[in-house]
Amino acid sequence: MPSDGSSGRKRVECLIRITGFGNFNTVKSASLDGISQSGSATRPLAQEAKLLRRAYAPARLAMKYHPYYHGKIEIAPKVPVNSYDDFAIWYTPGVADPCKEIQRNPERVFDYTNKSNSVAIVTDGTRVLGLGDIGPEAGLPVMEGKSLLFKYLGGVDAYPICLGTKDPVQIENAVRWLQPSFGGINLEDISQPKCFDILAALRSDLGIPVWHDDQQGTGTVVCAGLIGALKVVGKKRRDSTICMLGAGAANIAVARIIIEAGITPGNIVMVDSKGILNRQRTDLSETFRAKWDMALKTNKEGRSGGLAEAVKGADALLAMAAPGPGVVPSRLIRTMSDDPIVFACANPIPEIWPWEAKEAGAKIVATGRSDFPNQVNNSIGFPAIFRGTLDVRARMITDEMCIAAAEEIANIAEENGLDEDKIIPAMSDWELFPREAAAVGAEAVKRGVARLKLSRKELYEKATAIITHARKSTELLMRRGLIKNFPARTQRGRDRRVVQG
Amino acid sequence: MPSDGSSGRKRVECLIRITGFGNFNTVKSASLDGISQSGSATRPLAQEAKLLRRAYAPARLAMKYHPYYHGKIEIAPKVPVNSYDDFAIWYTPGVADPCKEIQRNPERVFDYTNKSNSVAIVTDGTRVLGLGDIGPEAGLPVMEGKSLLFKYLGGVDAYPICLGTKDPVQIENAVRWLQPSFGGINLEDISQPKCFDILAALRSDLGIPVWHDDQQGTGTVVCAGLIGALKVVGKKRRDSTICMLGAGAANIAVARIIIEAGITPGNIVMVDSKGILNRQRTDLSETFRAKWDMALKTNKEGRSGGLAEAVKGADALLAMAAPGPGVVPSRLIRTMSDDPIVFACANPIPEIWPWEAKEAGAKIVATGRSDFPNQVNNSIGFPAIFRGTLDVRARMITDEMCIAAAEEIANIAEENGLDEDKIIPAMSDWELFPREAAAVGAEAVKRGVARLKLSRKELYEKATAIITHARKSTELLMRRGLIKNFPARTQRGRDRRVVQG
Repeated sequence: MPSDGSSGRKRVECLIRITGFGNFNTVKSASLDGISQSGSATRPLAQEAKLLRRAYAPARLAMKYHPYYHGKIEIAPKVPVNSYDDFAIWYTPGVADPCKEIQRNPERVFDYTNKSNSVAIVTDGTRVLGLGDIGPEAGLPVMEGKSLLFKYLGGVDAYPICLGTKDPVQIENAVRWLQPSFGGINLEDISQPKCFDILAALRSDLGIPVWHDDQQGTGTVVCAGLIGALKVVGKKRRDSTICMLGAGAANIAVARIIIEAGITPGNIVMVDSKGILNRQRTDLSETFRAKWDMALKTNKEGRSGGLAEAVKGADALLAMAAPGPGVVPSRLIRTMSDDPIVFACANPIPEIWPWEAKEAGAKIVATGRSDFPNQVNNSIGFPAIFRGTLDVRARMITDEMCIAAAEEIANIAEENGLDEDKIIPAMSDWELFPREAAAVGAEAVKRGVARLKLSRKELYEKATAIITHARKSTELLMRRGLIKNFPARTQRGRDRRVVQG
Repeated sequence: MPSDGSSGRKRVECLIRITGFGNFNTVKSASLDGISQSGSATRPLAQEAKLLRRAYAPARLAMKYHPYYHGKIEIAPKVPVNSYDDFAIWYTPGVADPCKEIQRNPERVFDYTNKSNSVAIVTDGTRVLGLGDIGPEAGLPVMEGKSLLFKYLGGVDAYPICLGTKDPVQIENAVRWLQPSFGGINLEDISQPKCFDILAALRSDLGIPVWHDDQQGTGTVVCAGLIGALKVVGKKRRDSTICMLGAGAANIAVARIIIEAGITPGNIVMVDSKGILNRQRTDLSETFRAKWDMALKTNKEGRSGGLAEAVKGADALLAMAAPGPGVVPSRLIRTMSDDPIVFACANPIPEIWPWEAKEAGAKIVATGRSDFPNQVNNSIGFPAIFRGTLDVRARMITDEMCIAAAEEIANIAEENGLDEDKIIPAMSDWELFPREAAAVGAEAVKRGVARLKLSRKELYEKATAIITHARKSTELLMRRGLIKNFPARTQRGRDRRVVQG
């Protein structure tokens, strides 16, 4: 474990003074108590300050725009209203006949209502971004933002449901009771370890797909990035050794999915705040089943110690730990295998600055940020995965469907031309979403969990039509001023880049 | 009680053969077991058949259009997306700061999210329209239709939540857990008597308004109609005698609200399937508190018997009972006071055909149908009442707010020119919704349940802007084909009227 936490913390305090931002722990990241910051000495403070300022620009704009718009999503009619007479068709008395038809044939609810395109985003607000347990109301802006991405990127209607209970059994009950209105459930920002139990309890028997984006979503996208990165360095999945820093919900799901995608379990070494996971970590056997399972399954060499011992000789480091910089000291990168791969996924500041990792010998560096190459971001996963899942009315989202999504993302990266700065496609890659949706839907059909049997071509066309429709509608409303553009720019013109897109 | 049920039933069976429609019990109506149909002999069968055919046209179109559109509402962005960079403002990392702000100041959730315009339409599907317990999935088309009306008429974002439980305590828990995301709760189509207990438990202490439209909504609109009707016949509320046929959730709420609006409780006589409610009806004291309360409060003369005894000499009959015709025999109308008022609200067929009631001496007849004068319809209530309630962020909807809505509806009817065929405004009266919303919001401010103190003028302008925006957006999307118009008309051109509005 790094021992130079004190100097690192001082450096961070200095940066806080320079940038004027006081809270590093603001955005999506697994937490890893006890891993301390170490120094980075290879770039001047001014450059880091600039990067921090850039990292915090969205927060400044968010505080300005959120109260201006009073919410990010709304309900809209998707049927015509030519006259008031039409309400007799959509509501009483006409609506009674579709109701009776569904009563006779329950599956018709998918044809007669929007259930087949509706997802509930369910949270209890106990682990929102990196902010911890901020409660359901304070979590609502995130859920609305997620709904916006669901619609714009995937054409999915996602309803934010922030529950006023933290009890796992009550959360499970709430989801069961919500099931009739929805075609899928997206669990979000629920703390561990209860998130594992809730997902496991609901996933198998609800009849509609249940997804925990912090587990399966992150697992899918990191897996896609790792597939691309290993191709760039010419290493086989089966033979590669992987060090994973952080053993939260995200990294445990990443481990499960990369194993199913072909990584050898014994070649993984996982580290949490107390050190390497191994069979001596009996502290986990009672309290944390998911970690204990990993302790039994991974680390065939039986390594013990901290990050230094875990990362030595590894082909890839997947850090889903605490915001940096300095959580991963650059000297440890030097101990990795040849052409090492480093995923430093904490936000807003990666566990190690990309240039530090590169200078220490990393061949490929990926982060969660859009201002460095290789952004690893859930947003290229969940909208398309749910699109494909809903389009075949799947009963669940299997791990095979996640792998199919990851492989298709990696295929697109390869077709775009893989190199060390292009291991994964960006959110702006239009083809990505319908292709990924089609891959997921086709896998659901293959695995026998689909209610509708559509061909891959049909799935691609369906997803393309739905996503195109969502974007065109928003663009039309913007063009005609029915979605107002951002309020007046500041005098210093700082918002120009964003306003002009 | 009418004793000629047998001939009435034969007549109905004959009409069923003529029209080809087999189920009379398709639409919103309180049920009143044991009240039988009596004959109506004053119009030829052909005319009734035509009316029935017209009554069922919306059902035919509903079966055609529901599967064409796959749902009636969707989620739409209400913020601009100029480029993918904007997602950094609406989602991670920027969104963290609005979250933290809400954590510090919980009331800011109304400023930073759509909570202030969001309502959950919650049902368990146990009393959907007149269809009974058809379950939550089969109830979803109604809830989506309601959401459509909420948006188009009131600019309110209403989310259909069809619960997979019928247990009253679980329904109450579910609503409590849903509370953080929503600015209000609309309970819908939940069977009695549990609907009374659920409403009572939640209404007082949830912190956001809880509304059961089948109670308060119906009560408000019927009250508005009664106020208008009494003005037309020049009778005072305090002195008028009212017979109420049916003692379901709707009529019990109607009674409560008209009493608060100035009707003398003792002047009401209420009839259920077992006869007049009075102090001898001890069958009610344990099993049905709400009816028993009415038995104690109403009927100061201590009448007993059935509808015949109850309606004798009454100034108004408010029937919220079973679909007719013939549930109210015309001979009983002749026993009422001078200029009698008859509300026959069952759908699709009123308890008595309007022409029969008129021929028997009724001065004013109101029904639930749009093809007769004086349509009494919840749709002129809930969208505006929630609009006004949300616009002041009210903590609850008091009965005084319902009365304020009813009085404003009646004022508009009076300004439009009251007469026996115009006791209540129609849904197409544009002014109705913002004026009613402003009246409700102002009453909330006056009663101290509003978080925002807006003037009546401000409320009117706010409601006008929001409702206008909702309609304009839908119209634009229709005009540009992003909401497709109805599929091709039938060869016989039957749909022409509806298509052309």
